Amino acid sequence: MGVTINDVAALAGVSRATAARVLAGYGYVSEEARQKVYEAARQLGYRPHSIAQSMVTGRTKTIGLVVGDIENPFFAKMARGVSDTIIHEGYNLIVCSTNENPIDERSAIDGLCRKKVDGLIIAPASRREHSHIDELIEHKFPVVLVDRVLDVAGVDMIAVTNVEGAFDAVKHLLERGYREIAFLSDSFEISSNVERFEGYKRALAEKGLPIREDYIRTGSYTVEAGYREAVSLLSGTVRPEAVFAANNFMTIGVLRAAKDMHIAIPGQLALVGFDEMDWLELVSPTITAIAQPVYELGQVAAQRLLRRIAGDMTRPEVIRLSTRLIPRESSGVNPVRTEEEIDEVR
Amino acid sequence: MGVTINDVAALAGVSRATAARVLAGYGYVSEEARQKVYEAARQLGYRPHSIAQSMVTGRTKTIGLVVGDIENPFFAKMARGVSDTIIHEGYNLIVCSTNENPIDERSAIDGLCRKKVDGLIIAPASRREHSHIDELIEHKFPVVLVDRVLDVAGVDMIAVTNVEGAFDAVKHLLERGYREIAFLSDSFEISSNVERFEGYKRALAEKGLPIREDYIRTGSYTVEAGYREAVSLLSGTVRPEAVFAANNFMTIGVLRAAKDMHIAIPGQLALVGFDEMDWLELVSPTITAIAQPVYELGQVAAQRLLRRIAGDMTRPEVIRLSTRLIPRESSGVNPVRTEEEIDEVR
Repeated sequence: MGVTINDVAALAGVSRATAARVLAGYGYVSEEARQKVYEAARQLGYRPHSIAQSMVTGRTKTIGLVVGDIENPFFAKMARGVSDTIIHEGYNLIVCSTNENPIDERSAIDGLCRKKVDGLIIAPASRREHSHIDELIEHKFPVVLVDRVLDVAGVDMIAVTNVEGAFDAVKHLLERGYREIAFLSDSFEISSNVERFEGYKRALAEKGLPIREDYIRTGSYTVEAGYREAVSLLSGTVRPEAVFAANNFMTIGVLRAAKDMHIAIPGQLALVGFDEMDWLELVSPTITAIAQPVYELGQVAAQRLLRRIAGDMTRPEVIRLSTRLIPRESSGVNPVRTEEEIDEVR
Repeated sequence: MGVTINDVAALAGVSRATAARVLAGYGYVSEEARQKVYEAARQLGYRPHSIAQSMVTGRTKTIGLVVGDIENPFFAKMARGVSDTIIHEGYNLIVCSTNENPIDERSAIDGLCRKKVDGLIIAPASRREHSHIDELIEHKFPVVLVDRVLDVAGVDMIAVTNVEGAFDAVKHLLERGYREIAFLSDSFEISSNVERFEGYKRALAEKGLPIREDYIRTGSYTVEAGYREAVSLLSGTVRPEAVFAANNFMTIGVLRAAKDMHIAIPGQLALVGFDEMDWLELVSPTITAIAQPVYELGQVAAQRLLRRIAGDMTRPEVIRLSTRLIPRESSGVNPVRTEEEIDEVR
């Protein structure tokens, strides 16, 4: 903005308090002074109306979205779902990236709350360090958690059916004749990864198969981290027959590693990824995925938050949106097993 | 926020004007009333300090980013570049999607400016309808244009070398033996598409090749629009030998169309896309692209805007960041031409 109330007051030849009263629209000010202030504000291009407004109504008509990494297409699509929903109600969207770090998350939330939002949609970076989120909830600040859940009461949480989705992915691999199935995700600090790991374990347990520790790999949230873990996994003494990649960037990491290491998919390694991407059906082989309703996650979270901001005091809910298996070529039938062996696993 | 100044005033048992004066930190109020207001604000969780602050300083410590579609990975990555840059200066980012529509753009800008930003980074949706941007510039509101330029003075513009990048793409196809080269972009309302078309024309003109109107296809900014144009283009009586897709979503549109129509790339159709994507080297064939420094676009635009907000009055500049050709398999040598024919085009 640049132009301050002080500038307006100086040009109008009135006190700062008078200029502030005129511009905020309350208190008594003489008609003459009022005209001078308006004229000065117009000349200087001073545009504080909504700020002044928000002092009176307590509303900023802005919603904050706090996510791990806005560059991740998952969060970008979710942001679009939020944005499309709130724009019709005259709201703007502030977006903060936390680098999946609870300290950055705390400072983003402190900054946004102290300042300029009517409510927050948060994908919590850590299921352990979230006292800054608990505080918001205690203070009845409108908050909705999205994509991830926390072990706290009193807040709406919108997530997908992570356990079931991961179970479907691994069960699909088992049915195609794979037994040695690895799990690759980013950090277990993130609740969705823990839930997807739970689904992975359940699917193996159902078939009486053991969990091999060297097949469980977790790292950081970047493609590069996924790549490094995948290279390490695929260089082990016993290479798995299949990988379940628990998110989009991990899927890319596995694909890059397999390419660089000349490991054929699905001939030498099967792959199922959690999260659908634009290009998974363009790759050769096409990549089997668990599709999530990403746009809808944003939409439902935004609708719920708007209701909370409007004063809805009904009991908070945990809403789970369904995932869906899209079978493609990367999980083709295991070529190294006989029909009988496959039937046995089935 | 929910809690208003009225609520605080009511609980404190003072007038609204008194509560507002206390919370905004100006004007005389008795110590007793001040204590009552603070106590009421604390009990109610009222947090207007920064809003009050911004009335006094005229600063909101927020920057607005106005782009066509936040869901597009190009803009998501640019947003990340902006966000990472401004966060160190204590700024937050508001993001608005305009659907590449100047009317939505105008209302986004009106909303953001009247309200809550110290400056704006805009990727203008239209090179013709931009009076709302001109107005900002006339009023000396801090603005930086990004990705796209306008025919106006007095504003910094950060874009890539679109003409040169497109020239490189088409020249590369010519050198690989292709002559019948089509151009696919979204709307010519967007300056970068016009510039890329200019580069396309120059490369053909340099070889004395004609511009075929039925090879020039423009549509809307979505993958679906790119797909429809590509299907139409590839179903024509004379199918081009190659396509230059002028952005990431057009590239996806061509890939989908070729796949659905069983047209082999590069055997039956060569492809070069403007804009690098994560997965272009994972596809088979890998896809030749013109890489743009997307993150840096956001970074440079943000740095420039922060300088303008800080009062830098130096002459505005147009900064062009360089693009780079990444040759891959999708533009392999044309199999239907003899060496001599290829040399002739070279």
